[in-house]
Amino acid sequence: MAAMIVYRYLPLCNATLVLLLHLCSGLSLDTVRDFLTREEDTIVFSLIERAKYPLNPPAYDPATTYLGRRHNASFAEMFVRKSEAVQAKAGRYQSLQEIPFFPFRVPFTLAPPYNFTTELYPSAAFVNVNDAIWSMYFNQLLPFLANNGDDGNYAVTVSSDLVCLQTLSRRINYGRYVAEVKFIGDQQNYTTLIRNKDKDALMKLLTSEAQEDVVKRRVQKKAMMFGRNVTLDGPVGTDDSNSSQASFKVDPSLVYKLYDKWVIPLTKQVEVEYLLHRLD
Amino acid sequence: MAAMIVYRYLPLCNATLVLLLHLCSGLSLDTVRDFLTREEDTIVFSLIERAKYPLNPPAYDPATTYLGRRHNASFAEMFVRKSEAVQAKAGRYQSLQEIPFFPFRVPFTLAPPYNFTTELYPSAAFVNVNDAIWSMYFNQLLPFLANNGDDGNYAVTVSSDLVCLQTLSRRINYGRYVAEVKFIGDQQNYTTLIRNKDKDALMKLLTSEAQEDVVKRRVQKKAMMFGRNVTLDGPVGTDDSNSSQASFKVDPSLVYKLYDKWVIPLTKQVEVEYLLHRLD
Repeated sequence: MAAMIVYRYLPLCNATLVLLLHLCSGLSLDTVRDFLTREEDTIVFSLIERAKYPLNPPAYDPATTYLGRRHNASFAEMFVRKSEAVQAKAGRYQSLQEIPFFPFRVPFTLAPPYNFTTELYPSAAFVNVNDAIWSMYFNQLLPFLANNGDDGNYAVTVSSDLVCLQTLSRRINYGRYVAEVKFIGDQQNYTTLIRNKDKDALMKLLTSEAQEDVVKRRVQKKAMMFGRNVTLDGPVGTDDSNSSQASFKVDPSLVYKLYDKWVIPLTKQVEVEYLLHRLD
Repeated sequence: MAAMIVYRYLPLCNATLVLLLHLCSGLSLDTVRDFLTREEDTIVFSLIERAKYPLNPPAYDPATTYLGRRHNASFAEMFVRKSEAVQAKAGRYQSLQEIPFFPFRVPFTLAPPYNFTTELYPSAAFVNVNDAIWSMYFNQLLPFLANNGDDGNYAVTVSSDLVCLQTLSRRINYGRYVAEVKFIGDQQNYTTLIRNKDKDALMKLLTSEAQEDVVKRRVQKKAMMFGRNVTLDGPVGTDDSNSSQASFKVDPSLVYKLYDKWVIPLTKQVEVEYLLHRLD
């Protein structure tokens, strides 16, 4: 019996049954934390890869002429739209972990069949902050990630933007899974706060500053480990990751800031929004 | 005056002029080596990211039913074809560094205009070994890269295959640039061997076993550095990259083997083929 059906017909069923369903689906605080930790590597890799290319401003300026005329959308937006359309047809968004920036209503015409299960509460699964991620990425992160310059490789560059965006989207919107696990683990307290629509108290209840501090320092360390110049010997790129002489492909403090200012706050925003729909 | 025009009208012009053109375009043994070294990081990242997902066999089996029927091509091939079509329209292949696996003859309808220069000799620029890379990747590398399993995330999985393929293609087919630089640096010797179509002697002249050994050991080290589990403290993921206890997301010896058996030999095959057309 699918979790979705139980939720639909027994919205306030006893916690034990719902917990059992989660145990069957494999969703737990441990699996959620493991997922988020592994995604840190993916995010750092994607940032390092974007930083390989110069800023390439014509790719982002809606005023740039292409197709022989001006458009309302930047080249980057056009590219993401067209790439997401292919990926939608290929079934990428059948998994609730993946959310497009430009939603498509297409049948999954290309993908081999697969029966996905969902661990999310259906009425809250739609929650996402992709618009905020899009704006943050292009306006606040990218200018500090890439060096000034224009080498004309716009398609390769915006391909690597798309990888960054998809990775950040998956990580941040995974807040829905985090919230679901936290809700199940403390159903009584969360239910009261959700009924009262008490956003501030929900935010407080799901916040662990000590855990957030560990995450921020760990992603900064990952930026140091993965972004150095590795050589077989010599002073740069040896195993001394704390060397102040080392140069990195992406500034580790920028990755710290990304998590501090945007990834963690946006994830918690997703968690709160999800919880507010958790009893719908 | 573009290098291409000089080559076309002065195919045997004096070495000094051609060397000057290369100096202007920035192509030198140092820039070529820097490019190849940086691509190692990209390759290791892409392998680690593909290894995140299980093998997902239905994505690769031409006998899998999708679109409600059987096809002659696997889902992975269909996905790569459709993704490359979007990227071709977006101008990815205007840069000679990028070569599609399924060539398209489309106008660059989407990309902002940019005047690319080429450092390659036009009659030899077409050389590539994408067919061999495709076959090697799916038949020989992938079975050792991904764990057995099927989680249904075929679109995400083959997206990461595409990144691996594009990265390997760019790295290996960069042999054209390597060959161009080596030719310019020793024009007299290479010209004699090219005229005699002496493949074995060309292969010998462009081989440096000491340099290849450095590259293979360095990519293995990169797989250790980038593929470990980084923690703020504790035995696994500390700065001791040589720890035999450490577990890695991709087996470092597989990355060594990838370079030893395929990347380096295929690159040299590209170099020889390019040189054989260098005086056309």
